[in-house]
Amino acid sequence: MANLKIPLRDMRFSLHEVLDYTRACREIGGFEELSDDLLDAILDEAAKFVEQELAPLNQSGDQAGCQWQDGTVTTPEGFKDAYDKYVESGWASLSADPEYGGQGLPPSMSTLLSEMSGTANWAWAMYPGLSHGAHATITAHGSDEQKNTYLGKLTSGEWTGTMCLTEPHCGTDLGLLRTRAEPNDDGSYAIHGTKIFISAGEHDLTDNIVHIVLARLPDAPAGTRGISLFIVPKMLPQEDTRAGERNGVHCGSIEHKMGIHGNATCVLNFDGARGFLIGPPNRGLNCMFTFMNAARLGTALQGLAHAEFGFQASLSYARERLQMRSSSGRKNPDKPADPIIVHPDVRRMLMTQKAFAEGGRMFIHSLAMDVDITESNASDERKGKADQRLALLTPIAKAFLTETGFESANHGLQIFGGHGFIREWGVEQNVRDCRISMLYEGTTGIQALDLLGRKVVGSQGGLLRQFLSEVEAFCNANNNNRKLANMVASLDTHCDEWQRITTQITMRAMSDADEIGAASVDYLMYSGYIVLAYMWTRAAATALAALDDENCTEHDFYNTKLATAEFYFDKLLPRTRALVATMESGADSLMAIDAAHFSF
Amino acid sequence: MANLKIPLRDMRFSLHEVLDYTRACREIGGFEELSDDLLDAILDEAAKFVEQELAPLNQSGDQAGCQWQDGTVTTPEGFKDAYDKYVESGWASLSADPEYGGQGLPPSMSTLLSEMSGTANWAWAMYPGLSHGAHATITAHGSDEQKNTYLGKLTSGEWTGTMCLTEPHCGTDLGLLRTRAEPNDDGSYAIHGTKIFISAGEHDLTDNIVHIVLARLPDAPAGTRGISLFIVPKMLPQEDTRAGERNGVHCGSIEHKMGIHGNATCVLNFDGARGFLIGPPNRGLNCMFTFMNAARLGTALQGLAHAEFGFQASLSYARERLQMRSSSGRKNPDKPADPIIVHPDVRRMLMTQKAFAEGGRMFIHSLAMDVDITESNASDERKGKADQRLALLTPIAKAFLTETGFESANHGLQIFGGHGFIREWGVEQNVRDCRISMLYEGTTGIQALDLLGRKVVGSQGGLLRQFLSEVEAFCNANNNNRKLANMVASLDTHCDEWQRITTQITMRAMSDADEIGAASVDYLMYSGYIVLAYMWTRAAATALAALDDENCTEHDFYNTKLATAEFYFDKLLPRTRALVATMESGADSLMAIDAAHFSF
Repeated sequence: MANLKIPLRDMRFSLHEVLDYTRACREIGGFEELSDDLLDAILDEAAKFVEQELAPLNQSGDQAGCQWQDGTVTTPEGFKDAYDKYVESGWASLSADPEYGGQGLPPSMSTLLSEMSGTANWAWAMYPGLSHGAHATITAHGSDEQKNTYLGKLTSGEWTGTMCLTEPHCGTDLGLLRTRAEPNDDGSYAIHGTKIFISAGEHDLTDNIVHIVLARLPDAPAGTRGISLFIVPKMLPQEDTRAGERNGVHCGSIEHKMGIHGNATCVLNFDGARGFLIGPPNRGLNCMFTFMNAARLGTALQGLAHAEFGFQASLSYARERLQMRSSSGRKNPDKPADPIIVHPDVRRMLMTQKAFAEGGRMFIHSLAMDVDITESNASDERKGKADQRLALLTPIAKAFLTETGFESANHGLQIFGGHGFIREWGVEQNVRDCRISMLYEGTTGIQALDLLGRKVVGSQGGLLRQFLSEVEAFCNANNNNRKLANMVASLDTHCDEWQRITTQITMRAMSDADEIGAASVDYLMYSGYIVLAYMWTRAAATALAALDDENCTEHDFYNTKLATAEFYFDKLLPRTRALVATMESGADSLMAIDAAHFSF
Repeated sequence: MANLKIPLRDMRFSLHEVLDYTRACREIGGFEELSDDLLDAILDEAAKFVEQELAPLNQSGDQAGCQWQDGTVTTPEGFKDAYDKYVESGWASLSADPEYGGQGLPPSMSTLLSEMSGTANWAWAMYPGLSHGAHATITAHGSDEQKNTYLGKLTSGEWTGTMCLTEPHCGTDLGLLRTRAEPNDDGSYAIHGTKIFISAGEHDLTDNIVHIVLARLPDAPAGTRGISLFIVPKMLPQEDTRAGERNGVHCGSIEHKMGIHGNATCVLNFDGARGFLIGPPNRGLNCMFTFMNAARLGTALQGLAHAEFGFQASLSYARERLQMRSSSGRKNPDKPADPIIVHPDVRRMLMTQKAFAEGGRMFIHSLAMDVDITESNASDERKGKADQRLALLTPIAKAFLTETGFESANHGLQIFGGHGFIREWGVEQNVRDCRISMLYEGTTGIQALDLLGRKVVGSQGGLLRQFLSEVEAFCNANNNNRKLANMVASLDTHCDEWQRITTQITMRAMSDADEIGAASVDYLMYSGYIVLAYMWTRAAATALAALDDENCTEHDFYNTKLATAEFYFDKLLPRTRALVATMESGADSLMAIDAAHFSF
């Protein structure tokens, strides 16, 4: 797509009007100078950067892909230039700690930037995006020396980082991992093993890459309680923190994938590479969990990115492509046919993408604001509440927004008819690129088990009750808003049902542990539809208030918001009817067949 | 996937046990010698051919793709050898008229063969598959001379055929087409124009290709009533029907596509190519409609093919991949983890694929049997009934089976986790190849308009009533079957609802023509779920009867059928709950927004 436009008006609607974002930033302390105007200025500049530098490389990056030769990876033409500009303009350091050269803005600012860069070019955006895990690990668990050595370069973006978890025989089940760390005489460790699926594991954008590697110490217990974390830089930093000697970690090959061709997915071989223990021995997984929510939020963004991209691409096409006449009378009598946007089913697909993109945007922004709180100096109580909200909602955001993002990307393709299947339009790439989002950072199934098993049942319903009281408070506050009555009533009913179905599954799970797994994905999707209904009702309330203001100059914008909210309640929320029915039918029909009898 | 196995046991279940296929063939006349044993022998041979010759070329064909150079198209390595064997073994002529060298078996036999070859290698299967349109057009509308010239070679498979409809500015809306046919002095026509998206439009498998081209005569009225059909051979046949002089039709390029890389999608330039009028002038579209159902059935097959492929691939993986323990206690205590098939959510995805593949198989077989009747010498009444059943059910089969096929292909990928995104496993190819099926031969939206607007409302509900009485008769006949009671009751209720919702939409459409388009895709999917519920109830009835037989030796097989039927009613049919709700909400929220206000 030639002319991607970052949806700045919609981002401002979500941030300023629905979520009162900058006030929240000011309140939690440390960001007192962040005004709406300042935010707008940053967003405008960022949009200019991604529209001009990243969007034009999206399709060419897919076509060229990354090239591997003798351990070296070359990224597509233009990627390094764009990355250099990104670093020079200071975008990498937006949210980082000023102590290490960061600009000290709230963490959510970097999420907003990722939203934009990911929409323009997801494969490119993964390079700086992957640094987050390494940066956060060292910030949270590194020694002062480690912080001094790595954080400055990671903050500026001069170096990138990775997280090295997966091995050929284990992805989800990290307890099985085999990479080992043997103590060297100097206090470092010799790392031996093979890691796969390491995004941005090798590339030519920077002269060093800081790998955070999961490995076992010699005396480590089996399973997940015997995993430690190590910093393994590609180039061993010299005293003055410049990249120095080559370390024993090499890229053995890159994967040939369905999409995100511009991002290198690497096999990394550690042949006695020097690694430095970070955090306490055997506590590696716990250390990692501290920023798992942020990483999952980063992937939830991908669903939003592809929904927005698909929406924009297919909206232009639907306005231009002339085919058939409207059934309610020709709309374009001077032309041989009407633009396909007149056809109700094309509108159904456009509206679906729009509702998921704009609803997902509000959802993600609201979670990013929770992350701000958890990483701020706010009171423990406030941080605890934000943390609990994130615990419940992050797996929903990750799985629901990537599933609906993939659906949206497919609608975007479908609107192009046969042309959508052809590479030049870029919408089949959007589908291919999006497909990975339901897999990495924990598949949809894993998010669903985390949600229902660990978060909901594991908290005896406490996390869910906390969120439901937030929604209930909103409903109560809007009970007298006649124009919002239908939405509020529906939201209210759904919340009661959510509670009821949760109790029902929990009861069943007491006699059959498989009931959790059987209901989990339906439960997650069901929860997602309700969360988005909540976001859309808030959007509708905001739009109604704006329209009530006699100085309102954007009636079309707010009326469209209202209409999109109504569409959501009419056409998307009813999917909960199917999900309730399938959850209620339980696990029996899933578990009935012996594994040997699935085919004959 | 290395070891694709054609699901012969399941095909026999559908054909012999549920549908009593060979008896039906014998009854309609002309196929008195077709016994179950003979059919099994043919199916066994065909399965051997596709497993040995076509399946091994599926992945290599995707990777190599077709190459275009100076108007010539080279198919992937091995494609021509396999095609030669296909022709030599007589597979091309299975269902064709003995007068032109065919083997005189019913048309459904070639559908069964396509089911197999398409499952093994869809891109390859399209080359012989595309000949069908040309063959059927010449059979139905050709002069004796045209039949004598072309049918022999098309029957043997020595030549292939195409249908040239789409132009750059028109796909669905053929009324806009511009290709023109100017009379030559010798009674032939000079064809001028450009056609796009011509599958198998140029290739190296045969030495001639017979294009059926839609074009306008000089005096033709505008729109769809001014379209005529022309035979335009790539090589002009000599008197002895050998391919002779090169005609003025050339392949200008091939498309770079998301999938089906092994099949050439061509731009064809007609520069005064010699064409021969077939059928009456200006009646081209009507002539084509006579075999539209068969062509759509051919695409419905693609959904089944990819569902079956995805199911087989992910089933093997789910049995082998060890990851995590079953929540109901370890199943594989000697190994470090359990195979992922123990996890309920993996089973949900496997069962979904299985239910769509096996249910779709029965559905398609039953339609292929209707095609047999319409092309037989049966009584006019019987042919009329089969024709009406096909008219209603074909758009459902095409759209519903490709949509659920795509869903299934994606489940197949998902079960592989991150590995599914990597090319070597072949499951991402299965998703890419499948994506086109919802687009060509009329998109899902077009099938839905055909179903609801033309077939259901257009027949004042007559076609629907006819099918509903078939289902009702089945329900009545099984009313006393206690073990089937729940399914029959649910099916019965759904049929009543189907009727009710149809009336409701029809009423609304009287005051607002957009109500048809707004409900159409939901209506089609809703109908599809009920049709498949009918097929699964028939399967369950068959399985119950078999289990009641004291000589039954396949209890596992039939119990699995029953369990799959129950899964279908528990987990897939409830999707109708969402669809009813969205249909009932009408067109308003789709049409509310002005085209200019979709984004700001």
